Amino acid sequence: MTKRDLISPTDLNRDELENLLALAGRIKAKGTAPLLAGRTLGLLFFDPSLRTRVSFDVAITQLGGHCIQIDADREIYDLEPQEQVVMDGPAEEHVKDAARTLSRYVDVLGVRHLSKTGDWERDGQDLLLRSYAKHATVPVINLESTQHHPCQAFADMMTMQENLIRTQGRKLTLAWSNHPEPKSLGATHSVALTAATMGMDITLAYPLGFELDPEVMEDARRQAEQAGGTVRVINDLAEAADGCDVLYARSWGSHRYWGDPEREAMVKRSLQSWRVDRSIMARTNNAIFMHPLPVRRNVVATDNVLDGERSVIYDQAENRVHVQKALLVQLLK
Amino acid sequence: MTKRDLISPTDLNRDELENLLALAGRIKAKGTAPLLAGRTLGLLFFDPSLRTRVSFDVAITQLGGHCIQIDADREIYDLEPQEQVVMDGPAEEHVKDAARTLSRYVDVLGVRHLSKTGDWERDGQDLLLRSYAKHATVPVINLESTQHHPCQAFADMMTMQENLIRTQGRKLTLAWSNHPEPKSLGATHSVALTAATMGMDITLAYPLGFELDPEVMEDARRQAEQAGGTVRVINDLAEAADGCDVLYARSWGSHRYWGDPEREAMVKRSLQSWRVDRSIMARTNNAIFMHPLPVRRNVVATDNVLDGERSVIYDQAENRVHVQKALLVQLLK
Amino acid sequence: MTKRDLISPTDLNRDELENLLALAGRIKAKGTAPLLAGRTLGLLFFDPSLRTRVSFDVAITQLGGHCIQIDADREIYDLEPQEQVVMDGPAEEHVKDAARTLSRYVDVLGVRHLSKTGDWERDGQDLLLRSYAKHATVPVINLESTQHHPCQAFADMMTMQENLIRTQGRKLTLAWSNHPEPKSLGATHSVALTAATMGMDITLAYPLGFELDPEVMEDARRQAEQAGGTVRVINDLAEAADGCDVLYARSWGSHRYWGDPEREAMVKRSLQSWRVDRSIMARTNNAIFMHPLPVRRNVVATDNVLDGERSVIYDQAENRVHVQKALLVQLLK
Repeated sequence: MTKRDLISPTDLNRDELENLLALAGRIKAKGTAPLLAGRTLGLLFFDPSLRTRVSFDVAITQLGGHCIQIDADREIYDLEPQEQVVMDGPAEEHVKDAARTLSRYVDVLGVRHLSKTGDWERDGQDLLLRSYAKHATVPVINLESTQHHPCQAFADMMTMQENLIRTQGRKLTLAWSNHPEPKSLGATHSVALTAATMGMDITLAYPLGFELDPEVMEDARRQAEQAGGTVRVINDLAEAADGCDVLYARSWGSHRYWGDPEREAMVKRSLQSWRVDRSIMARTNNAIFMHPLPVRRNVVATDNVLDGERSVIYDQAENRVHVQKALLVQLLK
Repeated sequence: MTKRDLISPTDLNRDELENLLALAGRIKAKGTAPLLAGRTLGLLFFDPSLRTRVSFDVAITQLGGHCIQIDADREIYDLEPQEQVVMDGPAEEHVKDAARTLSRYVDVLGVRHLSKTGDWERDGQDLLLRSYAKHATVPVINLESTQHHPCQAFADMMTMQENLIRTQGRKLTLAWSNHPEPKSLGATHSVALTAATMGMDITLAYPLGFELDPEVMEDARRQAEQAGGTVRVINDLAEAADGCDVLYARSWGSHRYWGDPEREAMVKRSLQSWRVDRSIMARTNNAIFMHPLPVRRNVVATDNVLDGERSVIYDQAENRVHVQKALLVQLLK
Repeated sequence: MTKRDLISPTDLNRDELENLLALAGRIKAKGTAPLLAGRTLGLLFFDPSLRTRVSFDVAITQLGGHCIQIDADREIYDLEPQEQVVMDGPAEEHVKDAARTLSRYVDVLGVRHLSKTGDWERDGQDLLLRSYAKHATVPVINLESTQHHPCQAFADMMTMQENLIRTQGRKLTLAWSNHPEPKSLGATHSVALTAATMGMDITLAYPLGFELDPEVMEDARRQAEQAGGTVRVINDLAEAADGCDVLYARSWGSHRYWGDPEREAMVKRSLQSWRVDRSIMARTNNAIFMHPLPVRRNVVATDNVLDGERSVIYDQAENRVHVQKALLVQLLK
């Protein structure tokens, strides 16, 4: 068997995704045997993490395996990803060597790396992550990159399935929300692609200037078409909420102002109405409310929405464990 | 069963405390079965730790469970504890959401957070810790706060019992000592309250300006009265040592100079005689010498006291493991 | 049994080293039973680590035991190693107390500490590490110090044995290479001593100014003499490569410019030809190429050497796990 990586959610086709989610559901309902006894998961964090760190550690441990977490100080571990370079600069090690070494120690490797050069063309390539995947001889799991966050998206899809029973043809509104800081696009991209793969009718709602990456959009439209779903864009939050079954709020940064947080902050001063409150929720088809934590309360959404009975935000967080167990089992068995 | 937290030592009444210590003694003597197999302890450190970190990890692991340590970078994880706030400031997440999320992942949560705003009224409320306890749906253990350090106090009481057989009515002198830096009051408060609960005759010895928190003092006097013990204050180290069975040395900061370390340091220049040496120990009733590590040698106490045959400082450290095992078993079974 | 430490590779005599390597070979071939169930390894890092951290965690875990990693913030944990000091300076704790406390919690303690005062006389004493070994009541393993890195050297010797079958009398060239930064001498010293103990014919190749520590050299010559090997020095890379069976490249810092990295960097500008390429490898006896990672590609050695079929750099890294398992078993059983 050749090794399998999970960089983008579309690394799994629809059948594989449905199998994964079905397995995650069985694991949640019934627990698991120690299927991964003796196996080691290495987690390499170039960016901070609470949920990903803890949920993966719990997942592999409950499967009988072991987790080793490496907090990758960027000064030490932000390694050279380019080939054939004379390494007389700051990088102490080439990704090739770190990846091949770690492959001798662990059975599967998770990497979180958000590229932040300020140049979207460059950052959007997820170069370091893809270099790890290329050189590692064990499976590599994306723990969030500039472009993708597949584990979050899979947990979210599991949560939608739990609440909607059937997701095919159901209406998901993926709504940009205000936030004091520029956020990555990874989770948004991955949720859109995963929902497209599952044939949902997706409404993307954002103010002008906060478009998704064009290639991701194209990919989402293609996936949706294949799966019998749709993708549309509306530049108005209230209108986008009309009749949806799922209202998924999240802030993300703008390509236009990428690497210029002051400029983005200035633009966002006039966008404070992009916040989900009860009046927005009242326009939906009694939608569930979703958000991948952490959330800025009363900026992104109001307390009464976040704590309301249609909020499933903690289920999303919990389901990280279950989908990640299923993923680890599928990658390693 | 409702969940039970351990924030202050008085969260356990005397019977519960005696049961805990008895269980810790049996565990020390005979070991334990893997009573907590499959259970996870999360440790959240906002302040550095050596003993607490390692002793809890060893405790849960030897009980068959698993420890996940989270070093909480204050920039990332020093979360919003106030309710109904518009979170457009530095806090990325509300304690409510972090606590509820972690409650989906772990079975019990330890938190170390020493509030350091410089305002004693505020810091003494242990707001962040109490917010975690309020919002978590799993038990929360205080790993040291501004006001309390119950695990240290329980290990210390176990150590006293090992050496004194009976603690009721025995004389404990809790002696302030000099130190180049302002130290927290937590361990001192918790030792005083725990000894009061166990009916000891407590002498608090400190120079003027280094009073304990008035509410803690009141609580200690009430506990002592109920338990048949006493609490008195003497502002002289040598006199306070006379005839005691336990001399427990430790430095703590002054409320009066809270948030003003230069001022406190200036005051302490004239307090260098507050150091335990052989002449002080000679006044005791062949007392055991106690100190919760780390200790500044030859500032707080002399080498010959710390390394003397009546010193039980390493037993105190070891007993952390045993009382914490007992605590985890009682909280989780 | 008295406790046994591993500070320098010569803490094991030849018989003990051969037994260790034989056990490591059996473990690599056949795996191991959970011989160390219930045992805890504490790792104390004062300096960053990737390979050592992960390989020790994997080693103890696969033996059924448990690893606790402590990242020792130098501000907090760079403790006082001198005896009888009045601790009113920056050090919060004495090594004696940290070592004795940790000995109550763990069964074996690894320490990485590279002393960096800029004074070679002082740094070369490995004072903090040796203080830990002196005061701990459990075995202490050197995870790399200013003077030594025995675990790396043992893994390297295992790798040589795998490729050469017999190492007695075989030719090892230990070649200094260029590098933008001053590197520690630990691994070089330990490889030289280990190869000397095993009776190899060692050629040390370095430019003037990059001599090894005189005491280590003397020790290496003595070990070689006892074991039937030799040690010589050549100040020319190409000549040193002639006919060798193993070409082991690595950069190390100069005593002469210790603590003066600008000066060393200036000197090294004229030493860029100290880089292993195909023309150097062509002069060897079809040697294997070795380097303890991380490596600066195309500075220390060219890509085609590092990725060539005679390169065993990842085997060196993997063998860390196997020799460390053998070491832990021998120290703890």
